[in-house]
Amino acid sequence: MEPMHDAASPAATEPLVIMGAGLVGTLLALYLTRRGHPVHLYERLPDPRKTGLREARSINLALSDRGWRGLAGVGVTDDIRKVGIPMYRRVMHDQRGQLTYQPYGQEGQAIFSVSRDSLNRTLLDLAEAKPGVEITFGQKLTQLDLPARRLHLRDVASAREYDVPYQRLFGVDGAWSAVRGAMQRLDRADYSQQYLEYGYKELTIAAGPNGTWQMEKNALHIWPRGNYLMIALPNLDGSFNATLFFPYEGPLSFDSLRTPEEVERFFGEVFPDVVPLMPELDTEFFDHPTGSLVTIRCWPWSYQDSVLLLGDAAHAIVPFYGQGMNAGFEDCTVLDRLLDDLGEGDWGHIMDEFERLRKPNTDAMAELALYNFVEMRDRVADPRFLLQKRIEAKIAAQYPDKWLPLYSRVTFSPDTPYAEAWAAGQRQEAIMARLMPHIQGEEDFDKPEVQELVKSIINE
Amino acid sequence: MEPMHDAASPAATEPLVIMGAGLVGTLLALYLTRRGHPVHLYERLPDPRKTGLREARSINLALSDRGWRGLAGVGVTDDIRKVGIPMYRRVMHDQRGQLTYQPYGQEGQAIFSVSRDSLNRTLLDLAEAKPGVEITFGQKLTQLDLPARRLHLRDVASAREYDVPYQRLFGVDGAWSAVRGAMQRLDRADYSQQYLEYGYKELTIAAGPNGTWQMEKNALHIWPRGNYLMIALPNLDGSFNATLFFPYEGPLSFDSLRTPEEVERFFGEVFPDVVPLMPELDTEFFDHPTGSLVTIRCWPWSYQDSVLLLGDAAHAIVPFYGQGMNAGFEDCTVLDRLLDDLGEGDWGHIMDEFERLRKPNTDAMAELALYNFVEMRDRVADPRFLLQKRIEAKIAAQYPDKWLPLYSRVTFSPDTPYAEAWAAGQRQEAIMARLMPHIQGEEDFDKPEVQELVKSIINE
Repeated sequence: MEPMHDAASPAATEPLVIMGAGLVGTLLALYLTRRGHPVHLYERLPDPRKTGLREARSINLALSDRGWRGLAGVGVTDDIRKVGIPMYRRVMHDQRGQLTYQPYGQEGQAIFSVSRDSLNRTLLDLAEAKPGVEITFGQKLTQLDLPARRLHLRDVASAREYDVPYQRLFGVDGAWSAVRGAMQRLDRADYSQQYLEYGYKELTIAAGPNGTWQMEKNALHIWPRGNYLMIALPNLDGSFNATLFFPYEGPLSFDSLRTPEEVERFFGEVFPDVVPLMPELDTEFFDHPTGSLVTIRCWPWSYQDSVLLLGDAAHAIVPFYGQGMNAGFEDCTVLDRLLDDLGEGDWGHIMDEFERLRKPNTDAMAELALYNFVEMRDRVADPRFLLQKRIEAKIAAQYPDKWLPLYSRVTFSPDTPYAEAWAAGQRQEAIMARLMPHIQGEEDFDKPEVQELVKSIINE
Repeated sequence: MEPMHDAASPAATEPLVIMGAGLVGTLLALYLTRRGHPVHLYERLPDPRKTGLREARSINLALSDRGWRGLAGVGVTDDIRKVGIPMYRRVMHDQRGQLTYQPYGQEGQAIFSVSRDSLNRTLLDLAEAKPGVEITFGQKLTQLDLPARRLHLRDVASAREYDVPYQRLFGVDGAWSAVRGAMQRLDRADYSQQYLEYGYKELTIAAGPNGTWQMEKNALHIWPRGNYLMIALPNLDGSFNATLFFPYEGPLSFDSLRTPEEVERFFGEVFPDVVPLMPELDTEFFDHPTGSLVTIRCWPWSYQDSVLLLGDAAHAIVPFYGQGMNAGFEDCTVLDRLLDDLGEGDWGHIMDEFERLRKPNTDAMAELALYNFVEMRDRVADPRFLLQKRIEAKIAAQYPDKWLPLYSRVTFSPDTPYAEAWAAGQRQEAIMARLMPHIQGEEDFDKPEVQELVKSIINE
């Protein structure tokens, strides 16, 4: 590695250290190297580009506007757009295979299905192409001496142990962050990890002949079933990745489905339209592990002026709003803006400001993600709920300055912090609770008395 | 150690293992040995009876009815009563040294000030006198292999490491439990630690001549100051242990008091009546560490049929209701009752029932402890609040079957689970909020219209 030299700032030649070279760590490296810093990343796992194997199970993520903004800040959106598939609407599949539709936003607005693995490889290539960035894989953080500012690492392959001193360390090492683990042992470190009583199982919907898609390609598919749900996101090769979110225990649960016959009978009953497209269902259901769903909150996110947590290490959330990665990328945008505004003279102040600004928003995002679980598995199957969403779309069209659906605020409004989006969404939900008793069908919206009511409530 | 032999139950000869020989672990040992089990306790700290030194700072605890019931179950109340001082009421000291009073319960009802150290020594002596009990001090749990049912311990003095197999392990090793630490790393282990923005400092109020008490002996003294408070509990030697609960940061905080002069000026202003009784104030304030105040919640409390958490390891709370130790002793009572009811055939079922029964109650107790912090530092200084408490006492006297003050339900009603006490307390608080606008003085309670109102609300 050739350290970059910046004559104006001698401190800039001292490497910033990032623990974790996942999606957010790698994007953060791209941001920091632009500021003239050498950046050293250490990653526990091996280099995904060199293992010769793709991930056993591919995982898809929904990239949306906050994520795109994060990528745009370092000029890499073009590289990522190539591997993403826009999804313009939700397609709900009922138990008889009937479909209903719910657009995500305005005409042309979409969230993008991207493979985590492709995205990770692309970001790693982009980061490593920068002369100031050095990434070392297979390095496990075994001890972190916070007062001495020293990482103790073990090279997994050789078992060699060594120290890395740092002045600034960014803990971007995911939901089970070892950096956070060390901070959590300090006095007055708030921490919580809370699991849902649901697990998830990744399954595959096969591609059609010649890599065609056997369901609508540009959509996120949902099989809402009240107490549980399945979703599917498209892949470039014509297949879809499906995920079943399902109770661990109970009469219908991972615990209750114990044989291939039980799995087939259950899927045949509740997901009849898609079972013919899942030839590997039996084996996948038992071969793939059942993942758990956790929300992690902690405080503080920083240690003095030397360590800062970002991404899942600071705020891991459940996946139901498709915002985990987007929130992590937004962390990078927010930190970069703070460095613009405050300069790099006082890192203690920068880190304090970052956590103070960011914590209420990631807390709100954690709530939103839990809220959307109920929406996706239950409410989207309710015709009244879908009617309400169509009425909201009409209100938004009529009062564009006063009304924006919650989903759009979260997903398509990167200038609106999550906490503001959540507060506005709750206000709007209260308004809809007053309005909907007057509406039995979409056409009722145009009745003079309903128009009067909408006008008066909206201007309250 | 001579293992006890119980011909009727061969399994009973296999030792039960307890990690932690603090107050709750030792009491648990007394319970389990009565059932015919050999019990092995391992404790990280050295034997407090052999260090030749009393604790550097003595800590007092408030023992109340749930704690007494726990002690009574193994017949050791007489030994403990000798080292306790009954406290019949709160004595509030205002900023001019004026006193007001609030009885804790009915005539003769009291909570007891006991020294943690004396209590611990007494329980250790009682446990070790049982032929089936073996306690090994200075043994640190370095690793816990849950599937293999094996503790890995290090003898602190010799650094010798060794394994201890177990079939049943009780993790009673306190708020920073190493047993819980191992369980927390399993999938789906909920956990949270949350600190108050307040710390505490232990201080001493000196004894008078010939071991006399310089303030009312049989009372818990409170200096409520809105945003902070000091309390004091009596010792047998005439002194009191005082504890200042104070913000870490802010205009009046541990952070703002940096010199002996600042401490003297502050105490002289806000605690003028007691400063002359605190000759060591300056040195103690800076020599004694500032303790932090944490609430710990976790779930589950058990691992299969082999490990169960009790006491602070399962539910550490802040000290403001004086219920931490009492709740831990009650854990022993509840487990003992379950063993009576269910037998010892199926430990998995016993552990499941224990956590299912107990968790809602210790969660409620955690809420109560946080609630009482506000009451003690703020509300007890409000004449309206004290008037409300006197009115509540009158209602309780008039409708003894329908009304019991929250404090009495928590402290003097060991048959009432904490969650029921808290729910009833919240109902009564709502009633008082409707009643108090009609009451300006104690005498108003007897007015016919108030009597009517009370009667109608109470019978709703």
